[in-house]
Amino acid sequence: MKILVIGASGTIGKEVTKELEHDHDIILAGRNGADISVDITSPDSIKNMYEQIGKVDAVVNAAGGAAFSPLTELTPEKNEKGILSKLKGQVNLVLLGLDHVNDNGCFTLTTGIMMDDPILQGASAAMANGGVKAFVKSAAIEMPRGIRINSVSPNAVQESWDRLRDYFPGFQAVPANRVALAFKKSVYGAQTGQNYEVY
Amino acid sequence: MKILVIGASGTIGKEVTKELEHDHDIILAGRNGADISVDITSPDSIKNMYEQIGKVDAVVNAAGGAAFSPLTELTPEKNEKGILSKLKGQVNLVLLGLDHVNDNGCFTLTTGIMMDDPILQGASAAMANGGVKAFVKSAAIEMPRGIRINSVSPNAVQESWDRLRDYFPGFQAVPANRVALAFKKSVYGAQTGQNYEVY
Repeated sequence: MKILVIGASGTIGKEVTKELEHDHDIILAGRNGADISVDITSPDSIKNMYEQIGKVDAVVNAAGGAAFSPLTELTPEKNEKGILSKLKGQVNLVLLGLDHVNDNGCFTLTTGIMMDDPILQGASAAMANGGVKAFVKSAAIEMPRGIRINSVSPNAVQESWDRLRDYFPGFQAVPANRVALAFKKSVYGAQTGQNYEVY
Repeated sequence: MKILVIGASGTIGKEVTKELEHDHDIILAGRNGADISVDITSPDSIKNMYEQIGKVDAVVNAAGGAAFSPLTELTPEKNEKGILSKLKGQVNLVLLGLDHVNDNGCFTLTTGIMMDDPILQGASAAMANGGVKAFVKSAAIEMPRGIRINSVSPNAVQESWDRLRDYFPGFQAVPANRVALAFKKSVYGAQTGQNYEVY
């Protein structure tokens, strides 16, 4: 299989790549991607990426962010990062990528635990996560040519715990390679419309 | 109580108003609102509305839409309606309205059954609904001054069934006044962070 991994240099993206690279041809993409650069907040950048890579069997996205902000300080402007990146960035990877994925291929997006187990300052990220989860569930029933779509919802990961522990009191961080297994399940498996929780 | 109802002239908005108006002072808002006009896709229009009405005890939103489109024809541009209206429109009613709601007041937003029970052409609406639901759940833990926030997730309503029946095969439409009861529960009750399903 030829697999496009976006956000390949991130903590989770690296583990996903490690999990898949033995058996597959991986294209590493990201803001400064090893193989190809893409800014998922830009539909033109996404189109340009797909035009350059041709057809793939799977698209895995581990990129996308949202602003952390106390709710009372969250403005429409601050909320825009989550809208543009984690939400629209991921949805557009699907809408603009459908014609670049082979029959019976697969998209795997990323959501996150904050939509299910809210934390302070997490409303914007939760919004984006919830939007992606619902999009995946609904889009799955209309994907053409046997293409599947799932999302992976990670807990905070151990590799980022020093930076994240104050935001996630009482959470038990998970190893990024456990999150990578859920991506593997999505890519290798046959399920569609799922949101794999790695909590 | 002084209650702002946005989308007051819509099928659900009218029933919500009927349910609340006996006991309360209702401000009817909408694109051509009886009391005040607002376009929820515009943050400036939302700000202008709040400045004109002063403080309220509850904000009820029954406005907001998204494009219906087959997934393979859904473009980033078509998806923008749901982003601007049903998702950001509702989130911005909260972010820009916090200072205009009295202590122990309440926001009630609208999601919809399509995020839980997907239909063809519904991916964009599902995305918006899922984003609002997750935002509500997360924002609830950070609302200041005892302010609560919930959403109501209606099934297709009987009053619109002639127009909607082809999109919702096998669904059993609910009367809009049953949906209005869920808004009443949100406004009068003490729960927060809930998404009341009226399925």
